[in-house]
Amino acid sequence: MLKLFEYNWQVRKDWFAWCDTVNEEELMKRRTGGIGYILPTLYHIVAVEYGWICGGIQGKDIKIPPFEELTSLQQIKDFSDRCHTEVAPFIYDWNDSLEDLIMIDITDEGEQEAHKYGEVLRHVIAHEIHHIGQLSVWSREMGKKPVTANLIGRGLFPI
Amino acid sequence: MLKLFEYNWQVRKDWFAWCDTVNEEELMKRRTGGIGYILPTLYHIVAVEYGWICGGIQGKDIKIPPFEELTSLQQIKDFSDRCHTEVAPFIYDWNDSLEDLIMIDITDEGEQEAHKYGEVLRHVIAHEIHHIGQLSVWSREMGKKPVTANLIGRGLFPI
Repeated sequence: MLKLFEYNWQVRKDWFAWCDTVNEEELMKRRTGGIGYILPTLYHIVAVEYGWICGGIQGKDIKIPPFEELTSLQQIKDFSDRCHTEVAPFIYDWNDSLEDLIMIDITDEGEQEAHKYGEVLRHVIAHEIHHIGQLSVWSREMGKKPVTANLIGRGLFPI
Repeated sequence: MLKLFEYNWQVRKDWFAWCDTVNEEELMKRRTGGIGYILPTLYHIVAVEYGWICGGIQGKDIKIPPFEELTSLQQIKDFSDRCHTEVAPFIYDWNDSLEDLIMIDITDEGEQEAHKYGEVLRHVIAHEIHHIGQLSVWSREMGKKPVTANLIGRGLFPI
């Protein structure tokens, strides 16, 4: 599980570096599919990971600033770094005994839903990879090479 | 690990059902990003999973038909089913003692590369989710709702 989080964090960092090579107008241009914009997609990925793990599972009283308050690429990066500082220790401390613990989520419709911790973690992993796939299409639409999605070759599994 | 494969297999099945609602011309229309076409993307996902797991890790003498030989959606579905029959037992038998075993891959450039089994499995998981993210954008470009990417709510973690 940890390795897939580390993969996502590496890829996210690579996309932030990719964003440095693009003007902010392009990062905020309306596009088809997903969240519909590059920078809000990266914000959304961070907010969802932080929301489920620190707010949901850990039950912390977290504050997620609305996107509109984060007015630059740098502010989104800083938001990602702040969330990462809180999320990472939980992921590094993960062990199989946590798999079947239950958290209660309140849906947008106000209903209570129970989820196993293991389900939430895998949801968060898949969520980020899926949205990154969308960024890769938008990148090609701009005529730019996307960040590689390969997990192999990132040095995550040294021999 | 198993749960993320099961997620991918469910989502892939949902995308095949989605394909049934689209004419084959749309499935073979050139698009921007990724593999560049919907049906070849699904073929590629299947071929990569089968290639790494049955050909690479298990070292079986596998045959992957070129895309051109699979002339319809139904033939791609059948190819996926055949590969799944061979891939699934390995995934269901997976245990942590396999994590650090090593396989040797021959790259397209003819070089040998060593990979841990655990790295290969996570690569295959992320590979499919990434390409499915691309399908979701293309679906919206066609004005169609994509298959949900949510892992939560698929019944994968019954309580």
